[in-house]
Amino acid sequence: MKARVYVSFKPTVLDPQGVAVRSALHSLGFDQVDDVRQGKFFEILLAGGLSAAEARRQIEAMAQDVLANPVIEDYQFELIE
Amino acid sequence: MKARVYVSFKPTVLDPQGVAVRSALHSLGFDQVDDVRQGKFFEILLAGGLSAAEARRQIEAMAQDVLANPVIEDYQFELIE
Repeated sequence: MKARVYVSFKPTVLDPQGVAVRSALHSLGFDQVDDVRQGKFFEILLAGGLSAAEARRQIEAMAQDVLANPVIEDYQFELIE
Repeated sequence: MKARVYVSFKPTVLDPQGVAVRSALHSLGFDQVDDVRQGKFFEILLAGGLSAAEARRQIEAMAQDVLANPVIEDYQFELIE
């Protein structure tokens, strides 16, 4: 079973990478870009034999405890297959 | 209009961050994790008034020229709204 966890800064937290990317895009002529936010994602392959509910529980725990910093970051996840 | 661009290493390229995350998860007791690959994503807000086709063309150009390094990275994108 495979899962994807998406982690990004909370909307109220400044995202300097996103600001830098927007500025780079503008300087290359992509003037239509109003805003850029950057995040990261993790593609996690879980061992076979887990139920979807158990996989969901484990992925939630990993996201909360390891992959994201809940003070400044939000996360979302999806089970893919 | 909003788009999301996902960038990750090609499957044949070593992903040291993913390896480190897998190892951290194992050491915390998440033994079911077989593999982790890490990537990044960009949430791009485009100015209103662009057609979907034009937005798609611009996002493709940004991904190809700026956001990803096509030698070692793959990208995917989706228009969200």
